[in-house]
Amino acid sequence: MSSAVSPLAPTDVPEMPAIAGIKLATAAAGIRYKGRTDVLLAVMDKGTSVAGVFTRSKCPSAPVEWCRARLKSKAGSARALVVNSGNANAFTGKTGRQSTMLTASIAAKAVGCSPGEIFLASTGVIGEPLDATKFDGVLGTLAGNAIPGEWLNAAKAIMTTDTFPKVATATVKLGKANVTINGMAKGAGMIAPDMATMLAFVFTDAPISAGALQALLKGGVEDTFNAVTIDGDTSTSDTLLAFATGAAAANGAPKISRAGDPRLKAFTRAFRAVLADLAEQVARDGEGARKLVEIIVEGAVSKKSARRIAMSVANSPLVKTAIAGEDANWGRVVMAVGKAGEPADRDRLSISFNGIRVAKRGARDPSYDEAEVSNAMKNPKIQIRIALGLGRGTDRVLTCDLTKEYVAINGDYRS
Amino acid sequence: MSSAVSPLAPTDVPEMPAIAGIKLATAAAGIRYKGRTDVLLAVMDKGTSVAGVFTRSKCPSAPVEWCRARLKSKAGSARALVVNSGNANAFTGKTGRQSTMLTASIAAKAVGCSPGEIFLASTGVIGEPLDATKFDGVLGTLAGNAIPGEWLNAAKAIMTTDTFPKVATATVKLGKANVTINGMAKGAGMIAPDMATMLAFVFTDAPISAGALQALLKGGVEDTFNAVTIDGDTSTSDTLLAFATGAAAANGAPKISRAGDPRLKAFTRAFRAVLADLAEQVARDGEGARKLVEIIVEGAVSKKSARRIAMSVANSPLVKTAIAGEDANWGRVVMAVGKAGEPADRDRLSISFNGIRVAKRGARDPSYDEAEVSNAMKNPKIQIRIALGLGRGTDRVLTCDLTKEYVAINGDYRS
Repeated sequence: MSSAVSPLAPTDVPEMPAIAGIKLATAAAGIRYKGRTDVLLAVMDKGTSVAGVFTRSKCPSAPVEWCRARLKSKAGSARALVVNSGNANAFTGKTGRQSTMLTASIAAKAVGCSPGEIFLASTGVIGEPLDATKFDGVLGTLAGNAIPGEWLNAAKAIMTTDTFPKVATATVKLGKANVTINGMAKGAGMIAPDMATMLAFVFTDAPISAGALQALLKGGVEDTFNAVTIDGDTSTSDTLLAFATGAAAANGAPKISRAGDPRLKAFTRAFRAVLADLAEQVARDGEGARKLVEIIVEGAVSKKSARRIAMSVANSPLVKTAIAGEDANWGRVVMAVGKAGEPADRDRLSISFNGIRVAKRGARDPSYDEAEVSNAMKNPKIQIRIALGLGRGTDRVLTCDLTKEYVAINGDYRS
Repeated sequence: MSSAVSPLAPTDVPEMPAIAGIKLATAAAGIRYKGRTDVLLAVMDKGTSVAGVFTRSKCPSAPVEWCRARLKSKAGSARALVVNSGNANAFTGKTGRQSTMLTASIAAKAVGCSPGEIFLASTGVIGEPLDATKFDGVLGTLAGNAIPGEWLNAAKAIMTTDTFPKVATATVKLGKANVTINGMAKGAGMIAPDMATMLAFVFTDAPISAGALQALLKGGVEDTFNAVTIDGDTSTSDTLLAFATGAAAANGAPKISRAGDPRLKAFTRAFRAVLADLAEQVARDGEGARKLVEIIVEGAVSKKSARRIAMSVANSPLVKTAIAGEDANWGRVVMAVGKAGEPADRDRLSISFNGIRVAKRGARDPSYDEAEVSNAMKNPKIQIRIALGLGRGTDRVLTCDLTKEYVAINGDYRS
């Protein structure tokens, strides 16, 4: 872990209300770290529905394969979530699969359910066997100690190189009842779509079926987690799970079985806002980051094309190092637009940094003032707006700068 | 420019023989740098054929557009090459086009040919207008002073952040005559396929038609320049030009009009060796590089698939920073294989670092010895061999590590 908190960390942490039907507990199981918690157990009431989206890596971790199989077979119900940090249980072969099975069976015994109702996520080093026997005893104690409202401690237990815990919350009307959505995330490097964070978990007391929750999640990640990149590297472990306990039905919240249900409108907005908040926090905690960078592409031939161009700019080491150096090097932005392979016409291209247009229709903006731009680049948030002038496709991506600190953090993370 | 020469620079520079029909001269035109040469003029005899391959950027530089148009219209003959460093004349709009026209007309007057027989390349900052009037007078003097054999000075004049000049040579039989192939290259950052270097020029006295030369070049770049990546960023200016004066015909070298001509076999091998040598030197001079990294992928479903996987590994910031930290972090290699999107089966995957197998069939190699691997990682050349166990597709890519020095160099290149 880095010692210093990212200068881009949010200045205030929201109060995280309890959610009926969810209890949380954390412990120090000594997976890898010393003197900190590294296991989270979330216990959910019976009837909790679950949905998930995962890394598109062709070499996914054992917990990702476990969760995918559970979502397929169990008709979307969950009783507990076990997350550990320090070891990703990825590329651990047969041992890795055995380790997930053992963890699930220990958790199932502790909670009093079947192993198929246990969801798992692991983050940390890849390729090291995860000794699941360390969970024996620990999970039983956690199940006994779990209480509502421990969100911040939960978010802390799942951190790896993160410099601050990431939580977000929203309360919204569903029918005439108030329902709550709480989320937490971790992930600071190896962040790229798809998914754009290693681990994120969202919980609600709204009574939403597994199918509707899955559709909500799929629709929600596209412009949030999938629009964040730190370094273009995609983890083998990226996992986003959503749990809906349904406890708010007791307060009169209507049961929702379709994501398109008009009664779900406000909820959908709030759900996406929680995802967007968490995703932005991930970018703000990019390893070594000193600048939050927002790339807006306009006038592309399509949204898809705009996304590809925005990602090409967001993942360009030369653009990212220029921003670290507070240099409005729009020439490198042009380079990154050009290499994206998407339709672009150099002579229509305009580029702004923090609202100041530096390039206009294929050349330096005549009114460009170096001193003004240099000053704007000192801002901790940098917005690069790229107007292609070809069509109506627009998109937005978040990233951060590339600093010497990123190299330092990743040059000796494992050893 | 970096002050210190890359620790990966070749220990000896070859003697570069003169090539009949080629004269070279350099000057300090004050484009951007002080106290060094920044313009190269190569004057070729009448009858010189030319071929070229260029960046696939959608926003190419004005000189790239100029050369493409010349190759299209002039039936492949060249009388001179003008290269400047310090300013790429890229994204300079109408001014950029005017600037290429002016440079070509100044050069044409100096050499005594038509502007259409002048080839141009520029490297350096993007987006700054290039004042071509600076070439006025300079090119006339250079044309008068040009002499054979000035290869090393030529290679020095085209450097930007390069820490050493890059030259390569080969002499080979064509028919019963000896022919020579000389090459030079520059490029240290913003290096990715296609093309993998900013600028490279190859010259020969062999009598080869423009069409055959073009085919040779196209066939030659695939496993040389296009198999090198420094940072995944593709320049707007990448240019590789080949010139064949045909002077060796006077010594009895047969005139070649087809790349498939069996008499061209030895020449083709030597030509590729020169390209490969230059391309490797580009990787050895990667900005801030301390390690030359060779990625070999075997057992992929096809060569194309192997290339994509190799490139995914070669461009992964997490793999590159691990190598900078001398950490055999094969977990990150798995990650990069997984994110490539190509067929890969985790449970068949094996990975070696410098001949030591660390992962075998989806898990850590049982015989893996951390101390032995750590020691091997101290080597300045690191070979990562990835066996997928799926098919017969094989490929090889060169890159370098990602160090704090890369960030430092690129954090304040422009300002």
